[in-house]
Amino acid sequence: MAEERIRVDAEKLKALGARELQAVGVPEEGAKITTEVLVSADLRGVETHGIVSLVPFYIKGIQEGRINPNPNITVSGDDLSTATVDGDGGLGFMAAHRSMEEAISRAAKTGSGFVAVKNSNHFGPGFYYAMMALEHDMIGFMLTCSPVPEVVAPGSSTTAVGTNPLAVAAPCNKKPPFVLDMATSVVAAGKFRKAILEGKPVPEGWAIDKDGEPITDPHKRTADNGGLLSLGGKPELGVYKGFALGVVVDILTAVLAGAKPAVMRTEKKVSHLAGALKISSFLQVDTFKNIMDEMTEAYASLPKLPGVKNIFIAGGLEDEIQKERIANGLPLLPKVIQTLKETAEELGVEFDL
Amino acid sequence: MAEERIRVDAEKLKALGARELQAVGVPEEGAKITTEVLVSADLRGVETHGIVSLVPFYIKGIQEGRINPNPNITVSGDDLSTATVDGDGGLGFMAAHRSMEEAISRAAKTGSGFVAVKNSNHFGPGFYYAMMALEHDMIGFMLTCSPVPEVVAPGSSTTAVGTNPLAVAAPCNKKPPFVLDMATSVVAAGKFRKAILEGKPVPEGWAIDKDGEPITDPHKRTADNGGLLSLGGKPELGVYKGFALGVVVDILTAVLAGAKPAVMRTEKKVSHLAGALKISSFLQVDTFKNIMDEMTEAYASLPKLPGVKNIFIAGGLEDEIQKERIANGLPLLPKVIQTLKETAEELGVEFDL
Repeated sequence: MAEERIRVDAEKLKALGARELQAVGVPEEGAKITTEVLVSADLRGVETHGIVSLVPFYIKGIQEGRINPNPNITVSGDDLSTATVDGDGGLGFMAAHRSMEEAISRAAKTGSGFVAVKNSNHFGPGFYYAMMALEHDMIGFMLTCSPVPEVVAPGSSTTAVGTNPLAVAAPCNKKPPFVLDMATSVVAAGKFRKAILEGKPVPEGWAIDKDGEPITDPHKRTADNGGLLSLGGKPELGVYKGFALGVVVDILTAVLAGAKPAVMRTEKKVSHLAGALKISSFLQVDTFKNIMDEMTEAYASLPKLPGVKNIFIAGGLEDEIQKERIANGLPLLPKVIQTLKETAEELGVEFDL
Repeated sequence: MAEERIRVDAEKLKALGARELQAVGVPEEGAKITTEVLVSADLRGVETHGIVSLVPFYIKGIQEGRINPNPNITVSGDDLSTATVDGDGGLGFMAAHRSMEEAISRAAKTGSGFVAVKNSNHFGPGFYYAMMALEHDMIGFMLTCSPVPEVVAPGSSTTAVGTNPLAVAAPCNKKPPFVLDMATSVVAAGKFRKAILEGKPVPEGWAIDKDGEPITDPHKRTADNGGLLSLGGKPELGVYKGFALGVVVDILTAVLAGAKPAVMRTEKKVSHLAGALKISSFLQVDTFKNIMDEMTEAYASLPKLPGVKNIFIAGGLEDEIQKERIANGLPLLPKVIQTLKETAEELGVEFDL
């Protein structure tokens, strides 16, 4: 069933996407940031958050008036290590990138920097922004709430909390950086779309129906029939922890930005929190990075169960995928290329891939 | 099988424990902090982290030379919003309390405060320190690594990471505060000791043996036979997320304090990270707290599955337990009281409970 993929040049893909975004009114810098972030997801194998969404989600969102193409992004706040960014209803990429720059600049001055973002939209993969801290020898954080609840609270079969992902990145010396980017639900909703496409059932433990029974037929997860489960899945396996992590993300994003979390079903915009900790505020950067290297190696060297080839910590596998794709090109599905081509024609911009 | 509990006065219990700690050389302030923290766990129903450990773990640890009773706790660091506390091998309660005070003071000045703690020991329940931020209208964080690995990495049956708990507290207006305190493993090791005491099996999904098979007989979890599972339990249910959260805690505690995480099996001391975010740096405190109230109410008002009485967010149930115990006294097992009494006699301090 697998369609043959076509290898494309990542830089040309970014430029093409940016031309299309500029054609619908996004300023050059914002357009470049957006496709840089999207293509970084494809490069690291996180294709659900990659260029596949450029046209149907972001360009359509602008064309249909849900996303402001040319937002007036502002920064406010009187304190040295914190700030609030107003995304003015624009692309989440632009507001999130701005907020991470601000968090890094605050951390450079004071040791730590935390920046709330309000009036934003979906920002693609959170890891990109967390990783912005790495070249500054900082630990980076990026959290975002989801605009709609897709996850049930334990004890209920009504969706209440978003998949609310959190990302953390920390630098190593010679090893690939530690990069975590995870939904606080067992899986994100994209895994159901994938199962439907592949005609496969989903494992028990991903979602429940309105009666609280496990959903294994992916078609049965609908807006009025139960929802996803938080990480942990069942009470005796710690579902209240995954749920609480989702609520923590709501508090640190929506509530801290003065917006109402998804359970209150009144907001349409998305809030984020960007954070950075400057390693040299705590210890020598080399000491930190060398321990990170040794820790990565210690995990990789653990005795493995039969059939297990590698033990990676978060980001290790993605780093291998990225190296291969930078060397050999980005493998895209033909239909993704076709959509980009048709959109270039519609918008009157050059298709060069 | 349940032994009848005896209700005692929490303040008298704190004073008794503090006298015993002072008798083994802990200064008055450190002794008071320690029993204040331990009894707060009993008051909130987290008895595994309460006064039960005072004698066998902390007083014995001092008497046997593993814990420094009178540490010279120092604070260093040149940046405005960060610092490092050296616990000098003393009680973790003292170093953690000092670090949270420092985080709050940094956040008061700059908006955020993050303080690494090195050369510390077990600090009891992390939620206590996170909750110190609440009266300052801040969001509080406290993370700690575990000194020994008890949790296996996915793909291995060798213990590699600690149970590495994290705590987050955020204030409401009229509702109880949000208070999360969770191990990043499915369960903490104490749940196995409880199952053994009660003669019960444990659910599949808590631990695996050295062959990677589920352990359901709690006696079978030994130092050389597998270990606990990270939150998520199985690959298809997101165990790599729980594992990654455990590694995040190791990075933000051990590595940031210049110590080696448990997977490297070389350190005996424990590291922590204390954090605080000043709400008024981001928005009006009342706006934040009122949204927190509304969110708490929205979760409580969700339609419930049959048999479910309440839907609490983290801290809600513990708040109800605490109110009842403050009103009616703290229910202790007779053997806990007996140990405190015998220790008072041995140390020559007054037993008044």
